[in-house]
Amino acid sequence: MTFKIGLLGLGTVGTGTAQILLDSSGRNPLLHEIEIHRVGVRSLDKPRSVALPPEIITTDLEAIVTDPEIDIIVELLGGLEPARSLILQAIAHGKHIVTANKAVISRYGAEIFTAAEEAGVYVLLEAAVGGGIPVIQALKQSLGANRIRSITGIVNGTTNYILTRMQTEGGDFEDILADAQKLGYAEADPTADVDGLDAGDKIAILASLAFAGRIKLEEVHCEGIRQVSAVDIAYAQKLGFTIKLLAVAKREETLLEAESIDSEMLQVRVHPTLVPQTHPLASINGVYNAILVEGEPLGQVMFFGPGAGSGATASAVVSDIMNIAAVLKTAGESHRLNPLLSCIHQHYCAIAPISELISRFYVRFLTKDLAGVIGYLGTCFGKHNVSLESIVQIGLRNNVAEIVVVTHNVREGNFREALAEIRQLEAIDSIPSILRVL
Amino acid sequence: MTFKIGLLGLGTVGTGTAQILLDSSGRNPLLHEIEIHRVGVRSLDKPRSVALPPEIITTDLEAIVTDPEIDIIVELLGGLEPARSLILQAIAHGKHIVTANKAVISRYGAEIFTAAEEAGVYVLLEAAVGGGIPVIQALKQSLGANRIRSITGIVNGTTNYILTRMQTEGGDFEDILADAQKLGYAEADPTADVDGLDAGDKIAILASLAFAGRIKLEEVHCEGIRQVSAVDIAYAQKLGFTIKLLAVAKREETLLEAESIDSEMLQVRVHPTLVPQTHPLASINGVYNAILVEGEPLGQVMFFGPGAGSGATASAVVSDIMNIAAVLKTAGESHRLNPLLSCIHQHYCAIAPISELISRFYVRFLTKDLAGVIGYLGTCFGKHNVSLESIVQIGLRNNVAEIVVVTHNVREGNFREALAEIRQLEAIDSIPSILRVL
Repeated sequence: MTFKIGLLGLGTVGTGTAQILLDSSGRNPLLHEIEIHRVGVRSLDKPRSVALPPEIITTDLEAIVTDPEIDIIVELLGGLEPARSLILQAIAHGKHIVTANKAVISRYGAEIFTAAEEAGVYVLLEAAVGGGIPVIQALKQSLGANRIRSITGIVNGTTNYILTRMQTEGGDFEDILADAQKLGYAEADPTADVDGLDAGDKIAILASLAFAGRIKLEEVHCEGIRQVSAVDIAYAQKLGFTIKLLAVAKREETLLEAESIDSEMLQVRVHPTLVPQTHPLASINGVYNAILVEGEPLGQVMFFGPGAGSGATASAVVSDIMNIAAVLKTAGESHRLNPLLSCIHQHYCAIAPISELISRFYVRFLTKDLAGVIGYLGTCFGKHNVSLESIVQIGLRNNVAEIVVVTHNVREGNFREALAEIRQLEAIDSIPSILRVL
Repeated sequence: MTFKIGLLGLGTVGTGTAQILLDSSGRNPLLHEIEIHRVGVRSLDKPRSVALPPEIITTDLEAIVTDPEIDIIVELLGGLEPARSLILQAIAHGKHIVTANKAVISRYGAEIFTAAEEAGVYVLLEAAVGGGIPVIQALKQSLGANRIRSITGIVNGTTNYILTRMQTEGGDFEDILADAQKLGYAEADPTADVDGLDAGDKIAILASLAFAGRIKLEEVHCEGIRQVSAVDIAYAQKLGFTIKLLAVAKREETLLEAESIDSEMLQVRVHPTLVPQTHPLASINGVYNAILVEGEPLGQVMFFGPGAGSGATASAVVSDIMNIAAVLKTAGESHRLNPLLSCIHQHYCAIAPISELISRFYVRFLTKDLAGVIGYLGTCFGKHNVSLESIVQIGLRNNVAEIVVVTHNVREGNFREALAEIRQLEAIDSIPSILRVL
């Protein structure tokens, strides 16, 4: 049996994918049955580091997704369009889909999976989260016996690289971002990474799989790392914490007994977080990704590996192609979808409003009048039911004192109300950092 | 569709498995289609912590594996017999098998998989290695695009618990073993764990999957942790290392240019190892397991989680049951085996003789005549082409000096010859520890 694939995109991941498929000895023998039938690119003139017969390369992407000979479309274009339209068109033509496109899946997953279900085709996306780390298949298959309680991940390599360097070198965000851009670890427009949006796309996808429902991306709360400063990292370290950009999805067990909150509600959020140095995620450094899954009766498992890069991501792409080929071989003509590989949930998960979440917070204030302010902070937080663990002055510069407050577990709404009131105080110069504590 | 399972064994893991299946809300909906049809136990009188209808429990295990209504036999008896015979009998009756039995699979895998191939049934064994960590499915499916270079794992929780306590408390092996036995972390007869045999079974299974060939268990080199002492742990720590019992399977890339060694040969071995403190495996503590897989083009991925326990192991058992049920649903009547889930390799992997391996070694000597001995050690190792990194006196007790030698990468055969010669020297009292360095 031979399975013919149409490859859309021949950038880093596309090239890595083609390289694996063209050099299959020593890999799973199923790869011998997979053939690159056509490759779609934007420009034919670009030099390529993979030797493909020129006659199979085309700029006519539509001709690929409608080609009756092709079984599987591998979408590695990135971006929203034309990726979304081509995926939908391919599905309408009965093609199975393998994609690494987290942006398309997190935004248009509902549309794409509904179409795939109707057409009886698979849409696999192992490469969309965690690069070569096989976390998607684990959530779909190996961990399926569990009630998942939470997923906590470092899923953006760029921000983890920046935070790791800030931690080891003591530098500030802007300088290290600039250097990361020079070195190719951050893009010229770093918004999607540093503002937590890429991590938001990824946790939406993971949450959808773990909790078997659709997630509205606009309900995912995203904060990035721009506000994290060298001062925060140094002080967090003194307190026994490392600052990481965490993507979190969990069932609402930590909510206060708020009557309005359904216990089946989810939290789905991305934010810089103080992680205890003994926590397994605290030691994940550089561009590596790690995803910690907690379930019943499993307990905790963690997956760790390269979250990006040509080879790692291509490894995930090709594993999806193989999975589809293997299932097609098994199914023969009957073509019933494997319920563990297809995506059939129709409902949307209810996401708890961020104001109802319970967290510990770390806040750094700059203030002009130290003596009065510490008392005022204590009183004001107390008034709003925000119980404090500590208020400490950590620095004094140009007559401005730095004060760090760490709270106990408090309701976010109360905490925000207290902060709003505190901001009114003349003596408060600014509140440069508000971070959560794991 | 309903899939009927016959459960053999209702110990810790069997009970955990039944609990998941009887309480399936909030888990994957496929579980609703799985029914515990019969349960085989050794004694009907034992009190059970899971509520099963008494009429489905029997001591007649053969009646279960031959029951025409049963689709999947879940073997959780442990031990070699009657587990092996029952598995073979079930296969002969066309049942699919799910097992957690590493001892049976590592010894009788060839016989069992050949029979399964002939009968057209699956034998899945996620729970046999790493408890709830989904490493088996990753090797079979998600990482299949890679050429695997190496697998390095902490796969025995008992020894990792003992080594972790030796590290944190500074205690000696025998005392902590006795305490671990009292606490239930080590068995009354701890041989399989502390002599590395359990880890040997597991690395044989992992190597077989990663390198797509059968492994003769007797060719797996196993050393346990009995010889590891508090002195070694303390000195290793000073050198920047943590001592772990590692199970290693890798392609022979580190061999010297020995003409007799095929580059496709494997190393498969278990031994206490000095692991650099910065290595991801160094921080895996207590009863946790971790498995690091290195492949091309993937790079490194690590899986971390509970390596044993009722819930974690049952999670893996049930995921295998679900996988089979899902594939059966997809396949309908056609019943062709999924090539990624079945095991079809017939050949045996060639295992390199341990004498040809290249490693760094740590050796601790007790000697009576310090001055002469250090020179002699240097000369003797040199004569056998064993290049040394350091010779250091680390202690002196009752007129006996402790000397630690750390070598560069050397051929194990040469190293052993040098040691044999050194042992002859009158001044050498004993050689209490020989450990490898990662």
